[in-house]
Amino acid sequence: MAHGDKQRITVDIHNKTYTIIGEESVSHVRMVASLVDQKMNEIHEQNKHLDTTRLAVLTAVNTMNDYLKLKEDYAKLAGSLNRKEDK
Amino acid sequence: MAHGDKQRITVDIHNKTYTIIGEESVSHVRMVASLVDQKMNEIHEQNKHLDTTRLAVLTAVNTMNDYLKLKEDYAKLAGSLNRKEDK
Repeated sequence: MAHGDKQRITVDIHNKTYTIIGEESVSHVRMVASLVDQKMNEIHEQNKHLDTTRLAVLTAVNTMNDYLKLKEDYAKLAGSLNRKEDK
Repeated sequence: MAHGDKQRITVDIHNKTYTIIGEESVSHVRMVASLVDQKMNEIHEQNKHLDTTRLAVLTAVNTMNDYLKLKEDYAKLAGSLNRKEDK
Protein backbone atom coordinates (compact mmCIF):
# COMPACT_ATOMS: atom_id res chain seq x y z
CA MET A 1 0.00 0.00 0.00
CA ALA A 2 1.16 3.55 -0.66
CA HIS A 3 3.09 5.32 2.05
CA GLY A 4 0.88 7.65 4.08
CA ASP A 5 -2.31 5.64 3.60
CA LYS A 6 -4.00 4.77 6.87
CA GLN A 7 -6.18 1.73 7.24
CA ARG A 8 -8.30 0.17 9.96
CA ILE A 9 -7.40 -3.37 10.96
CA THR A 10 -9.35 -5.34 13.56
CA VAL A 11 -7.53 -7.83 15.79
CA ASP A 12 -8.49 -9.96 18.80
CA ILE A 13 -6.42 -9.64 21.96
CA HIS A 14 -7.38 -11.48 25.16
CA ASN A 15 -10.97 -12.00 23.99
CA LYS A 16 -11.62 -8.40 22.98
CA THR A 17 -11.65 -6.90 19.52
CA TYR A 18 -9.47 -3.86 18.82
CA THR A 19 -9.32 -1.60 15.80
CA ILE A 20 -5.78 -0.57 14.99
CA ILE A 21 -5.41 2.46 12.72
CA GLY A 22 -2.08 2.93 11.01
CA GLU A 23 0.14 2.61 8.00
CA GLU A 24 1.47 -0.86 8.83
CA SER A 25 0.55 -3.90 6.74
CA VAL A 26 -2.23 -6.22 7.88
CA SER A 27 0.26 -9.06 8.47
CA HIS A 28 2.50 -6.83 10.60
CA VAL A 29 -0.39 -5.60 12.75
CA ARG A 30 -1.66 -9.15 13.20
CA MET A 31 1.81 -10.30 14.29
CA VAL A 32 2.10 -7.45 16.82
CA ALA A 33 -1.38 -8.24 18.20
CA SER A 34 -0.59 -11.93 18.43
CA LEU A 35 2.65 -11.24 20.37
CA VAL A 36 0.78 -8.98 22.81
CA ASP A 37 -1.97 -11.61 23.21
CA GLN A 38 0.69 -14.26 23.88
CA LYS A 39 2.44 -12.11 26.50
CA MET A 40 -0.90 -11.33 28.22
CA ASN A 41 -1.68 -15.03 28.38
CA GLU A 42 1.76 -15.82 29.82
CA ILE A 43 1.39 -13.16 32.55
CA HIS A 44 -2.17 -14.33 33.20
CA GLU A 45 -0.93 -17.92 33.72
CA GLN A 46 1.50 -16.67 36.38
CA ASN A 47 -1.02 -14.29 38.05
CA LYS A 48 -4.50 -15.75 37.75
CA HIS A 49 -5.96 -13.21 40.22
CA LEU A 50 -5.15 -10.14 38.11
CA ASP A 51 -8.02 -8.26 36.51
CA THR A 52 -7.74 -7.51 32.78
CA THR A 53 -6.70 -3.87 33.25
CA ARG A 54 -3.82 -4.79 35.56
CA LEU A 55 -2.89 -7.65 33.25
CA ALA A 56 -2.78 -5.29 30.28
CA VAL A 57 -0.72 -2.66 32.16
CA LEU A 58 1.77 -5.31 33.30
CA THR A 59 2.00 -6.57 29.71
CA ALA A 60 2.84 -3.02 28.62
CA VAL A 61 5.44 -2.75 31.43
CA ASN A 62 6.98 -6.08 30.39
CA THR A 63 7.14 -5.06 26.73
CA MET A 64 8.64 -1.66 27.60
CA ASN A 65 11.30 -3.43 29.66
CA ASP A 66 12.18 -5.65 26.67
CA TYR A 67 12.28 -2.55 24.48
CA LEU A 68 14.71 -0.72 26.78
CA LYS A 69 17.00 -3.77 27.02
CA LEU A 70 17.10 -4.04 23.24
CA LYS A 71 17.79 -0.30 23.01
CA GLU A 72 20.83 -0.78 25.28
CA ASP A 73 22.02 -3.72 23.14
CA TYR A 74 21.55 -1.61 20.03
CA ALA A 75 23.63 1.23 21.51
CA LYS A 76 26.41 -1.22 22.41
CA LEU A 77 26.41 -2.71 18.91
CA ALA A 78 26.44 0.77 17.32
CA GLY A 79 29.36 1.65 19.61
CA SER A 80 31.40 -1.34 18.49
CA LEU A 81 30.60 -0.58 14.84
CA ASN A 82 31.87 3.00 15.31
CA ARG A 83 35.07 1.72 16.90
CA LYS A 84 35.64 -0.55 13.90
CA GLU A 85 35.10 2.37 11.54
CA ASP A 86 37.61 4.48 13.47
CA LYS A 87 40.32 1.87 12.94
CA MET B 1 21.93 -5.83 44.59
CA ALA B 2 23.18 -9.37 44.08
CA HIS B 3 22.18 -11.14 40.91
CA GLY B 4 19.22 -13.43 41.47
CA ASP B 5 17.71 -11.39 44.30
CA LYS B 6 14.10 -10.49 43.65
CA GLN B 7 12.50 -7.44 45.16
CA ARG B 8 9.07 -5.84 45.20
CA ILE B 9 8.83 -2.32 43.87
CA THR B 10 5.60 -0.33 43.84
CA VAL B 11 4.93 2.14 41.06
CA ASP B 12 1.98 4.28 39.99
CA ILE B 13 0.70 3.94 36.43
CA HIS B 14 -2.40 5.78 35.23
CA ASN B 15 -3.66 6.35 38.78
CA LYS B 16 -3.27 2.76 39.97
CA THR B 17 -0.54 1.25 42.10
CA TYR B 18 1.32 -1.81 40.78
CA THR B 19 3.81 -4.07 42.49
CA ILE B 20 6.58 -5.13 40.16
CA ILE B 21 8.59 -8.17 41.25
CA GLY B 22 11.95 -8.63 39.61
CA GLU B 23 15.71 -8.35 39.68
CA GLU B 24 15.87 -4.90 38.10
CA SER B 25 16.99 -1.85 40.08
CA VAL B 26 14.41 0.49 41.60
CA SER B 27 15.47 3.31 39.25
CA HIS B 28 15.11 1.07 36.18
CA VAL B 29 11.64 -0.15 37.20
CA ARG B 30 10.53 3.43 37.93
CA MET B 31 11.78 4.54 34.51
CA VAL B 32 9.92 1.70 32.73
CA ALA B 33 6.72 2.51 34.68
CA SER B 34 7.03 6.21 33.90
CA LEU B 35 7.46 5.52 30.15
CA VAL B 36 4.36 3.27 30.17
CA ASP B 37 2.41 5.91 32.10
CA GLN B 38 3.50 8.56 29.59
CA LYS B 39 2.51 6.42 26.59
CA MET B 40 -0.89 5.61 28.17
CA ASN B 41 -1.51 9.32 28.73
CA GLU B 42 -0.56 10.11 25.12
CA ILE B 43 -2.94 7.46 23.74
CA HIS B 44 -5.63 8.62 26.18
CA GLU B 45 -5.30 12.18 24.88
CA GLN B 46 -5.97 10.93 21.34
CA ASN B 47 -8.81 8.54 22.34
CA LYS B 48 -10.66 9.96 25.32
CA HIS B 49 -13.47 7.41 25.04
CA LEU B 50 -11.24 4.36 25.66
CA ASP B 51 -11.62 2.47 28.95
CA THR B 52 -8.46 1.73 30.93
CA THR B 53 -8.18 -1.91 29.79
CA ARG B 54 -8.35 -0.95 26.11
CA LEU B 55 -5.97 1.93 26.74
CA ALA B 56 -3.46 -0.41 28.40
CA VAL B 57 -3.76 -3.06 25.65
CA LEU B 58 -3.21 -0.40 22.96
CA THR B 59 -0.20 0.86 24.93
CA ALA B 60 1.20 -2.69 24.90
CA VAL B 61 0.49 -2.97 21.14
CA ASN B 62 2.21 0.37 20.52
CA THR B 63 5.26 -0.63 22.58
CA MET B 64 5.44 -4.06 20.90
CA ASN B 65 5.42 -2.30 17.53
CA ASP B 66 8.35 -0.09 18.64
CA TYR B 67 10.13 -3.20 19.90
CA LEU B 68 9.77 -5.03 16.56
CA LYS B 69 10.97 -2.00 14.60
CA LEU B 70 14.02 -1.72 16.84
CA LYS B 71 14.63 -5.47 16.44
CA GLU B 72 14.71 -5.01 12.65
CA ASP B 73 17.13 -2.07 13.01
CA TYR B 74 19.28 -4.19 15.32
CA ALA B 75 19.40 -7.03 12.77
CA LYS B 76 20.41 -4.59 10.02
CA LEU B 77 23.15 -3.11 12.19
CA ALA B 78 24.42 -6.58 13.15
CA GLY B 79 24.42 -7.47 9.44
CA SER B 80 26.56 -4.47 8.52
CA LEU B 81 28.94 -5.26 11.40
CA ASN B 82 29.35 -8.82 10.11
CA ARG B 83 30.06 -7.55 6.62
CA LYS B 84 32.78 -5.27 7.99
CA GLU B 85 34.31 -8.20 9.89
CA ASP B 86 34.34 -10.32 6.73
CA LYS B 87 36.40 -7.69 4.92
